Amino acid sequence: MPSFPTKVVIREVGLRDGLQSIQTTLPTARKIEWIRDAYDAGQREIEVGSFVPARLLPQLADTAELLDFAKTLPGLFVSVLVPNLKGAERAIDAHADLLLVPLSASHAHSLANLRKTPDEVIAEVARIRAARDAAGSTTLIEGGIGTAFGCTLQGAVDQREVLRCMQALLDAGADRVSIADTVGYANPAAVRELFDKARALAGERFWCGHFHDTRGLALANVYAALDTGVARFDATLAGIGGCPHAPGASGNASSEDLAFMLADMGIDTGIDIERLLALRAKVAQWLDGENLHGTLSLAGLPRTFPARTLAASPDVAPLHSAVNA
Amino acid sequence: MPSFPTKVVIREVGLRDGLQSIQTTLPTARKIEWIRDAYDAGQREIEVGSFVPARLLPQLADTAELLDFAKTLPGLFVSVLVPNLKGAERAIDAHADLLLVPLSASHAHSLANLRKTPDEVIAEVARIRAARDAAGSTTLIEGGIGTAFGCTLQGAVDQREVLRCMQALLDAGADRVSIADTVGYANPAAVRELFDKARALAGERFWCGHFHDTRGLALANVYAALDTGVARFDATLAGIGGCPHAPGASGNASSEDLAFMLADMGIDTGIDIERLLALRAKVAQWLDGENLHGTLSLAGLPRTFPARTLAASPDVAPLHSAVNA
Repeated sequence: MPSFPTKVVIREVGLRDGLQSIQTTLPTARKIEWIRDAYDAGQREIEVGSFVPARLLPQLADTAELLDFAKTLPGLFVSVLVPNLKGAERAIDAHADLLLVPLSASHAHSLANLRKTPDEVIAEVARIRAARDAAGSTTLIEGGIGTAFGCTLQGAVDQREVLRCMQALLDAGADRVSIADTVGYANPAAVRELFDKARALAGERFWCGHFHDTRGLALANVYAALDTGVARFDATLAGIGGCPHAPGASGNASSEDLAFMLADMGIDTGIDIERLLALRAKVAQWLDGENLHGTLSLAGLPRTFPARTLAASPDVAPLHSAVNA
Repeated sequence: MPSFPTKVVIREVGLRDGLQSIQTTLPTARKIEWIRDAYDAGQREIEVGSFVPARLLPQLADTAELLDFAKTLPGLFVSVLVPNLKGAERAIDAHADLLLVPLSASHAHSLANLRKTPDEVIAEVARIRAARDAAGSTTLIEGGIGTAFGCTLQGAVDQREVLRCMQALLDAGADRVSIADTVGYANPAAVRELFDKARALAGERFWCGHFHDTRGLALANVYAALDTGVARFDATLAGIGGCPHAPGASGNASSEDLAFMLADMGIDTGIDIERLLALRAKVAQWLDGENLHGTLSLAGLPRTFPARTLAASPDVAPLHSAVNA
């Protein structure tokens, strides 16, 4: 039997990866309510937005305000995505706990999405590190390596290139590195292989796994990653986001389904799932008409769920036939 | 790194577990087309129906005819579910390759669904074995242990009771035993633990895993089971079936998503996924209005899919934002 981590952090990225991918623009007051409710449900790491030009992502134009609010919640570890030094300076000034710099291991995807080569992103991370140190800031720098399992533009992505980028990010001064399956091309065997190598390379600085559920494998991929000792995963409430260009396809790993899987496995996430489901119901109303995901909100918690004795489970007996194997 | 099986069989149970759970009654001609197309797509094990009284499951009243047709396809291993000796005699007379007798490890579920205690089912298996041997038949007898991870009626199900039933089924003459998560209560850690013990108890006679996707964990559970060396899984095309009393919840492991996961992991299933997706599209038309599942039919195969070079992938580049981690 494997030994899984006893504690796992679910980093909520719905306010960034989720909201950037959908039509609805949530008012700032509702995003603040989301952050507060997520905090009350026990979430302790939240990516509140991106410091990118508002013309590119108007849905995330209020990131600075959200960061200021989130920093008022005791013990909340607040992160923000930044594409470059300019965004990083805003994150550092605002005392973000962590800034995430995305890098695409696929050169084609990197040029198309970030308008830089991977090595140009790595050079930018070195400048960000210098700026962070010059400011005497404690903001951590995370290099997030996307399209790590393949890419819709160039197809295959060489594992060696992912690991080369990871080493180069660390050499450039990243405090943390992580791996993302940006387009939903990972499978659990590939995850285990790459995450084993990443852990061997970066040790405890290998920080987080980010899986999209495009082909239904997000939770299987998390499970495979757990086996390598990784103990932090990105997820979005109601699974929003992911790959908006594959209509109807599933989005991100959903926070509530992931929280359930981990808790049911006996892994501590600190999350009160019923509170998280209540927040999901609220956000689902706010995002009426958007494509939401996840199954727990439909099926409910099992009667056997270990966290509590459920007096009235939403499950009912499957008395639908004489023979139900 | 673990060593997975190099070959895995996906047993198609959509015609039984799927169709028994939905409103639409498919005409026999369409079921025959389904079986033929599944065979042409490379599926070599199909559960064609149940030998239960037609008044209980009118959707499956044509099981004998389907079995006769399926037996004409060279190399197809044809199985059927039977609740009792009477059904088993029909399966033996019709030369089914395998008959599956369901047993509920949950006593409450057993009484409610099968109207027998587990030990009464085991006694029936002994009678079925005697009848099989008396007939000089080669039909294999599988004891399928359901509600193995918990039950909506009684809650927790003791692992020891699952393993006791498994040993008793083997002692009573079952050639094969399998485990089913009838109500979607399994998680991958629980699967790995129970399947390890089941393999230790039954060896190669531990035959098959059956996972419902009620809480989105079917594929993660299959992956966990692979780690124990189990190499046969039930699944249904479009994920039909599962738990019809949890409206909107996901049903079974979907055959096409499972075939993709396994193939992408480099595991041989013998299935041509594009043909299986074409069959899915056809069945989806036949089952218009029913609740279908699965993600591959929406997202398409990745460009990196190993079985072939895809000239035109249904995937498109996620050029939706300047920063897409």
